[in-house]
Amino acid sequence: MIIALSGGVGGAKLALGLSRILKPEDLLVVVNTGDDFEHLGLSISPDIDTVAYTLAGLANRELGWGRHDETWSFMETMEALGGETWFRLGDRDVALHVERTRRLRLGESLSAVTEALCRKMGIAQRILPMSDDPVRTRLLTDAGWLDFQEYFVHRRCEPVVSKLEFAGAAQAKAHPDFLAALADPRLEAVVICPSNPFISVEPILAIPGVRDAMIACAAPIIAVSPIIAGRAVKGPTAKMMTELGLDASAGSVAARYADLLDGYVIDHADMSEVVSIDARVTLAQTLMTTLEDREALARIVLDAAAVLRRRRTPRGQRHAAAR
Amino acid sequence: MIIALSGGVGGAKLALGLSRILKPEDLLVVVNTGDDFEHLGLSISPDIDTVAYTLAGLANRELGWGRHDETWSFMETMEALGGETWFRLGDRDVALHVERTRRLRLGESLSAVTEALCRKMGIAQRILPMSDDPVRTRLLTDAGWLDFQEYFVHRRCEPVVSKLEFAGAAQAKAHPDFLAALADPRLEAVVICPSNPFISVEPILAIPGVRDAMIACAAPIIAVSPIIAGRAVKGPTAKMMTELGLDASAGSVAARYADLLDGYVIDHADMSEVVSIDARVTLAQTLMTTLEDREALARIVLDAAAVLRRRRTPRGQRHAAAR
Repeated sequence: MIIALSGGVGGAKLALGLSRILKPEDLLVVVNTGDDFEHLGLSISPDIDTVAYTLAGLANRELGWGRHDETWSFMETMEALGGETWFRLGDRDVALHVERTRRLRLGESLSAVTEALCRKMGIAQRILPMSDDPVRTRLLTDAGWLDFQEYFVHRRCEPVVSKLEFAGAAQAKAHPDFLAALADPRLEAVVICPSNPFISVEPILAIPGVRDAMIACAAPIIAVSPIIAGRAVKGPTAKMMTELGLDASAGSVAARYADLLDGYVIDHADMSEVVSIDARVTLAQTLMTTLEDREALARIVLDAAAVLRRRRTPRGQRHAAAR
Repeated sequence: MIIALSGGVGGAKLALGLSRILKPEDLLVVVNTGDDFEHLGLSISPDIDTVAYTLAGLANRELGWGRHDETWSFMETMEALGGETWFRLGDRDVALHVERTRRLRLGESLSAVTEALCRKMGIAQRILPMSDDPVRTRLLTDAGWLDFQEYFVHRRCEPVVSKLEFAGAAQAKAHPDFLAALADPRLEAVVICPSNPFISVEPILAIPGVRDAMIACAAPIIAVSPIIAGRAVKGPTAKMMTELGLDASAGSVAARYADLLDGYVIDHADMSEVVSIDARVTLAQTLMTTLEDREALARIVLDAAAVLRRRRTPRGQRHAAAR
């Protein structure tokens, strides 16, 4: 069994690759919900939806969000009515949000709603929100504190970020199935997908008990760098790293996970960084353009994890040695 | 100034006719909200929307509800997701409901939201909900008590109706602009549009003070029969009358408004009923198929009202004489 920690687009691509190699019941995708927000009265979970649409074969690859078979009457009409249109919602996408919101209001958990809707979309793998409790990523910027989507979509990542917080994370409970999977002796690897560390992966790690459970878990933890040659494939990762006073490099991302990583997959372009990374490094083509790229990278990650399982120093011992 | 009391389709047709004759500021359409309901987490006001779409030139005349320029991706997806689909919502229609719901949740009144959205739809006339307080029509049937839309849409008016109630009506306040218009010396007529008396007009009359204000108002009150030759043009009016032990006739409808009516417009087909109607009757073609029909009927109603203004016995005196 494999756990994949994922944010949106980049994570979803690798999750798709993994889904095409593994048996459906052997993949658990744990998804960031720090991007979730309430908009137009609807409960929207952008990362869950991106992963779900991707695994269902419904994702809009041109836009990088939403569905490929989308229509836009809702948004056109919302604009004509003078409503808010900065967060683009397709007609089919709205149906998902309305149905999710309706079920959440009836008291169903986000994970239960996600599971039911994913099943209806024909997804055989399990997509699990990191928590059923609300966690909301907020950013301190030169325009003040901003909610995530305000920063990310409305202001197009333009404000300069100096700090992040994950509101609610300290009170949130990690989903019990996530913690159970981390403790499961059948677990073969935890894959940290090539998502933005600050806004996609660290909200997951910020939930009490998650980092400890990952450190304690017997399976190797292997990350894929979201940075290739100093640039992010998509989104504000590199810009944000620079603003936070970090090198925009594969090595800097690895340093964020230093206490967790057994293995790290970086692009051939970043070979020179190998020396600075405190994990077993695998070089690969990490840019996933085609479906074959996704599958190929997934295979490399799983192969690297298999090697790590045979050779690794248990994480506890390594940490003991480091003290 | 003219007040038109309206339910959905039939009322909206006459309101459209009136809107094409009168100056925009001279028409106030007071609309039933007893059909309003919460569905999929959205606040839906079917009669307001039918009147608004009709006056805006957006109504779907084939369906008899919704918009003519509609798409259906939302509903298709809702069905695929296993959500509720018995109440059909087009993609553009959903935008209106989402925006209305959002603004209501922020604390705006239904009348304020309606006014703002109607302005955005380019409607120059005033469409006013009968009340900003919730009133919900419920029906006692052979399938038990049913909410209006459950009866009307989900069960297609099939259950046999024995009783109606307007939950919340006793606590609701008539919209102050409605009461003010009834007391306005410039008021030239109150038109009761050809809507179902039980589910479209009587919810309006059930609000405390409305019936009294209508009896007291100086302008003539004139209704148009929704029944032609024993049949309703659309909807369950005739069926419901029979189930309630009434003749499905223009005369029976007039009897529902007996304390209010000065004038009554019936179809030529119902000429034989003139003798049984306690109001000045005008014969006309009341079936409104074309836009010209709507305008022609509106003219007849306004002309009849003008005659009534010159000739009428003040409502108070007539009632005094009846005692």
